[in-house]
Amino acid sequence: MKFQQKLNNIIKKNNSLLCVGLDPDWDKLPKNILKNSDPFFEFNKSIIDSTYDLVCAYKPNIAFYEACGIDGLKQLKQTIEYLQLNYPKIPIVLDAKRADIGNTAKMYAKSIFEYWNADAVTVYPNLGLDSLIPFLQYRDKLIILLIKTSNPDSSMFQNIIVDNEPFYLKLARKIKTWKHPNIGIFVGATYPKELEDLRKLFPDSIFLSAGLGAQSAEIEKAVKAGIDKTKSGIMFNASRSILYAKDPRKEAKKLKEEINKYR
Amino acid sequence: MKFQQKLNNIIKKNNSLLCVGLDPDWDKLPKNILKNSDPFFEFNKSIIDSTYDLVCAYKPNIAFYEACGIDGLKQLKQTIEYLQLNYPKIPIVLDAKRADIGNTAKMYAKSIFEYWNADAVTVYPNLGLDSLIPFLQYRDKLIILLIKTSNPDSSMFQNIIVDNEPFYLKLARKIKTWKHPNIGIFVGATYPKELEDLRKLFPDSIFLSAGLGAQSAEIEKAVKAGIDKTKSGIMFNASRSILYAKDPRKEAKKLKEEINKYR
Repeated sequence: MKFQQKLNNIIKKNNSLLCVGLDPDWDKLPKNILKNSDPFFEFNKSIIDSTYDLVCAYKPNIAFYEACGIDGLKQLKQTIEYLQLNYPKIPIVLDAKRADIGNTAKMYAKSIFEYWNADAVTVYPNLGLDSLIPFLQYRDKLIILLIKTSNPDSSMFQNIIVDNEPFYLKLARKIKTWKHPNIGIFVGATYPKELEDLRKLFPDSIFLSAGLGAQSAEIEKAVKAGIDKTKSGIMFNASRSILYAKDPRKEAKKLKEEINKYR
Repeated sequence: MKFQQKLNNIIKKNNSLLCVGLDPDWDKLPKNILKNSDPFFEFNKSIIDSTYDLVCAYKPNIAFYEACGIDGLKQLKQTIEYLQLNYPKIPIVLDAKRADIGNTAKMYAKSIFEYWNADAVTVYPNLGLDSLIPFLQYRDKLIILLIKTSNPDSSMFQNIIVDNEPFYLKLARKIKTWKHPNIGIFVGATYPKELEDLRKLFPDSIFLSAGLGAQSAEIEKAVKAGIDKTKSGIMFNASRSILYAKDPRKEAKKLKEEINKYR
């Protein structure tokens, strides 16, 4: 099934735009979890089982698994298999932030979609279209291009002014001319102005956003800027604020409802 | 030992600027190698054992291993361990092209330098300085920033004109103001003009270049543009042209000597 359809279905079913980031950090895991032989998997499982009816997607960031090498990656595999077996309707966004040229990009795409079996991936567009074709050829998958990242220094290069507009927008306008329906757009929720500008440029694309603040006013801004005309079409990711909360389910429910308040 | 010292030592010892890319491609491996249970490792071993005295570095591109999942990555681990045990003086550049923000960048850096034990890594600078600090903190390692990639479409965004100069150069000038001595520079050898401009800007930095053509004239241009004032300071990577040659050693020797001709 095409990603867009799968996402729309679950957004409706769970009435949620919340994506939960499965980013297990060894230093933050509860002590009773660390006793297991597969602590990342056990932790993810507990998060998934307590939030599956509140989310529109899960987004493991592969960096957290790679930090523990092959042992960490095995637990990513376990997590993905667990999700696909028990919650096959929930899309998996593998946040891998890959980018390479020609034959090598092909290898990354093969890894993401044929080995990890993700439904979507995050990719940098800065190498140009030829570097993205190997990903875009997986037409049922969503290729989310990182246009504007959420970190403080992201403006250093992404907002350099080119012909009276910031670089990220110039880049986005070029991307807009590519006729690939499976392109998604990533914008940090920390930059609602950028989110708004990009939503105007891509009214019908699927967006992924991260870095949503805890403040209600910030959530309002980001939600209003990011939703499409069906009041949908965007996944808002939260990781740490949910994963390491005293009660992850309660925190996920609160954020889901806070987002819905402004849709 | 600092990367720069390690690289200088081997460049002198082997009189070589040649870096060999260890990029095993399942579809191209010799049939007798495919019979092994660890074909990538066996293939790399045969390449390493026949070129170790001709190179200044080895550069596995992690994408080729990731394409085969955990089984592929195990063989990358075997390869790195084999190199470090048998040829500890040859630096290993892990071509991973990573980039992420804050805490996640820290996880990638941990993976590259503490799990994979690489001596150097390739990283995208487009997210700004804060995304690079977790890598740069490994002060004995070289953090090679991908400034200008070798693919045909790389000019699409990297050469957009900003204040009368291409974006990649604007970005490079900013990077020049960062006082981190362990920054390296990647430029595709397919762009000798860009290589020349960047060498002028970073006269003393270590460069990595790839995509060197087979034509003698192209090699001359790239070598003259890329070497520093000591006629050194750059690694020229070749992968497929050596790995899948009838006689990899002969091909490596030829390319090493061709590069030296223009130093």
